[in-house]
Amino acid sequence: MHIYDLLNKKKHGIALSKSEITYLIDNFTQGQIPDYQMSAFLMAVWFNGMSKEELFDFTQAMSHSGDNLHLPFAPIPVVDKHSTGGVGDKTTLVVIPIVAACGIYSVKMSGRGLGHTGGTIDKLEAIPNFQTSLSKEQFLQNVRKIGAAITGQTGNLAPADKKIYALRDVTATVDSIPLIASSIMSKKLAAGSDCILLDVKVGSGAFMKTLKDAVELASTMADIGTKACKKTAALITNMDSPLGYAIGNSLEVQEAIATLHGHGPADFRELCMQLAAYMLYLADKGSLQGCRALAEEAMYNKKALQKFIDIVAAQGGDTSYIEDPSKFPRAPYIGQIFAPESGYIAKLDAEQCGRTSMLLGAGRNTKEDKIDSTAGLILNKKYGNYVRKGELLATLYTSDKTLLPAATKTFLEACAFSALPPPEEPLVFAYVNADKVVMFHD
Amino acid sequence: MHIYDLLNKKKHGIALSKSEITYLIDNFTQGQIPDYQMSAFLMAVWFNGMSKEELFDFTQAMSHSGDNLHLPFAPIPVVDKHSTGGVGDKTTLVVIPIVAACGIYSVKMSGRGLGHTGGTIDKLEAIPNFQTSLSKEQFLQNVRKIGAAITGQTGNLAPADKKIYALRDVTATVDSIPLIASSIMSKKLAAGSDCILLDVKVGSGAFMKTLKDAVELASTMADIGTKACKKTAALITNMDSPLGYAIGNSLEVQEAIATLHGHGPADFRELCMQLAAYMLYLADKGSLQGCRALAEEAMYNKKALQKFIDIVAAQGGDTSYIEDPSKFPRAPYIGQIFAPESGYIAKLDAEQCGRTSMLLGAGRNTKEDKIDSTAGLILNKKYGNYVRKGELLATLYTSDKTLLPAATKTFLEACAFSALPPPEEPLVFAYVNADKVVMFHD
Repeated sequence: MHIYDLLNKKKHGIALSKSEITYLIDNFTQGQIPDYQMSAFLMAVWFNGMSKEELFDFTQAMSHSGDNLHLPFAPIPVVDKHSTGGVGDKTTLVVIPIVAACGIYSVKMSGRGLGHTGGTIDKLEAIPNFQTSLSKEQFLQNVRKIGAAITGQTGNLAPADKKIYALRDVTATVDSIPLIASSIMSKKLAAGSDCILLDVKVGSGAFMKTLKDAVELASTMADIGTKACKKTAALITNMDSPLGYAIGNSLEVQEAIATLHGHGPADFRELCMQLAAYMLYLADKGSLQGCRALAEEAMYNKKALQKFIDIVAAQGGDTSYIEDPSKFPRAPYIGQIFAPESGYIAKLDAEQCGRTSMLLGAGRNTKEDKIDSTAGLILNKKYGNYVRKGELLATLYTSDKTLLPAATKTFLEACAFSALPPPEEPLVFAYVNADKVVMFHD
Repeated sequence: MHIYDLLNKKKHGIALSKSEITYLIDNFTQGQIPDYQMSAFLMAVWFNGMSKEELFDFTQAMSHSGDNLHLPFAPIPVVDKHSTGGVGDKTTLVVIPIVAACGIYSVKMSGRGLGHTGGTIDKLEAIPNFQTSLSKEQFLQNVRKIGAAITGQTGNLAPADKKIYALRDVTATVDSIPLIASSIMSKKLAAGSDCILLDVKVGSGAFMKTLKDAVELASTMADIGTKACKKTAALITNMDSPLGYAIGNSLEVQEAIATLHGHGPADFRELCMQLAAYMLYLADKGSLQGCRALAEEAMYNKKALQKFIDIVAAQGGDTSYIEDPSKFPRAPYIGQIFAPESGYIAKLDAEQCGRTSMLLGAGRNTKEDKIDSTAGLILNKKYGNYVRKGELLATLYTSDKTLLPAATKTFLEACAFSALPPPEEPLVFAYVNADKVVMFHD
């Protein structure tokens, strides 16, 4: 077998066999196949895609390239969730505790912010002393004790994916559905859960800009998960405008805590309920309706909040901040943005809102940048709301007041106003598994 | 400007600007752009091609990446020729001396054998002491004195192409018409000639397998040359079966010498006459018919032979071998292949004949392999000839008799016989320049 022949096949659109894919991934992981051959392969995949079988083999080879977690002590099934990333998306902080409070073990390895989207790990680090990098042993011990843990990547999971992702990032091969699907699923397959719920975001603030692409990505991932004998499904959810009111790390943690109290923004709370219900449903906790009732109960009786406090405590975080969120430090500089005209908010572009938050210090431009955990913004109005000229639209938070003018400009570019109410936007577009796509709106 | 954005454009089929192409080539040549980004670029070009303008900029940037030869002493115009490579193709050894004998300065940098095709430099090295690597100064001095030189690459010509070619070779991006065209033309543009005649081979023994591809490659190269203000044209010539009778380095030199005497195989002599005539025609030596007469005269009056002797002498070769080719050592082992059946030779596959020669020791499998200059074969029959069962088809020459059985098997696989004469095959299919394609047969 020779990599040249595999490249030649791939560029002519011929699917590689399982042994060819294994050869490719194993030798690349061990440094026997150089980057310049892998990058040519990735570009050929960008053009020709992969067959379902080939993509499954590719994903599995990556998931087998390092450690595979096992949770033999946990009651079956263990559930996992994954969001493809959005603006104001703090669902993990609410959903994992709810599911754990319902007696389903749940493991969640999260990432850091990428581009204009925030990362769960960055958010959790706004809680003083919270440890996001646990050893494999500590991670497993916490899951055993509490039934849940939320960490950065633990152990040497899917190192092939890590190497390939770094290469995609510099060769313009990130935006490929098979490559996105295999990257996400290789880590999920290695992480030891039995069920996987995917939250595939679609819209201006998401990596998938069209419903068609989002459904294709969701179906592709569900197919991979199902082939690997994991119960896998996806919700396609709206990311045209931000989720909830808060964008920025500490601000989002506070909003998640409010939601665990049964408060919080309606759109965000509803999405958390649906995600938690589907996770319980995948875990065979009864009908979807029954699972929804379980999730609501866990929120209203504060058992989910208590579970979140347990998770924070087990990972070294200062739980007094969860019990009294007013303790979270507030950014020293505050900017207010007022409506430049009267009308309905017909656009509140999620990507631009994410960029506003980054500009205020909440994100990174390079891997080395330090995050200002207090930075970000609170939306005072949402998509579809009517505002009068001069009414407060948003409040900006930052530690560097020189950042306010550019952030204000970017935020105002995110907005558009209209005389008539804009069309209502669905929160969840579809449910997707390996067999079917159920559209909720037409 | 950032390479990521250029990759992104290219993969979406957007042509790069001249400044973007210059940035890409300059930074790659200097090692600022790593191989893995260039290989992704090359694969994107394999899929999306290049616009004419973009390809010209790409070729020029490569041709400007190193030395550019100047021949201020030579009468204008200086002509160059290039063959895309075939089996039994020793035309350079005949054509360059003819053109030089007609008073047109001619510079020729040739390559070594590649795969099943031979290389002019390997052939010339069959002449004892012939120096194929001349310094730039020595090369220019020889051209000044004799009006011609045939060497390997002299000076640091188109180093960007050298780096890119090495990468294409290992990333399955060799078979791309724009990449082939730019690779050839970048070196031709840097080599200092005013006119370029291209011999684009088509058929089983050529890199271009179809007439359509060969015409596209020829047009693409003619367009690049013309844009660079070089008078450029191409002949599309047949490479379904080998050219002449001799395949193998020393055997081909002897056939070239016979042809310079006015003997040699009819097909090979005719092609040499046509190529020489078109070179003279590009150099404004009169009508095509008149140029053909000049070329024939230079052959029959032995002025071309004398020019070849002058070239060999100037490059240190032992001219007594040219004057008496019986001095060339003969391979110690000879194999004879007899017709397994009676019939017309309906196939004499050029690529298989080339492989037979390689198997006998005339070529290289790896760059390090040493060539046996006496190895190869003489065809005793050509495509279209009638043979009786048991009649001699070919004679094999080698220094290692254990190689004979495999070579015999490969040669017999090259042959097919039929009861009826096969269709006559044209020697030259078309004349191509930047403006037009003239088909000689329909």
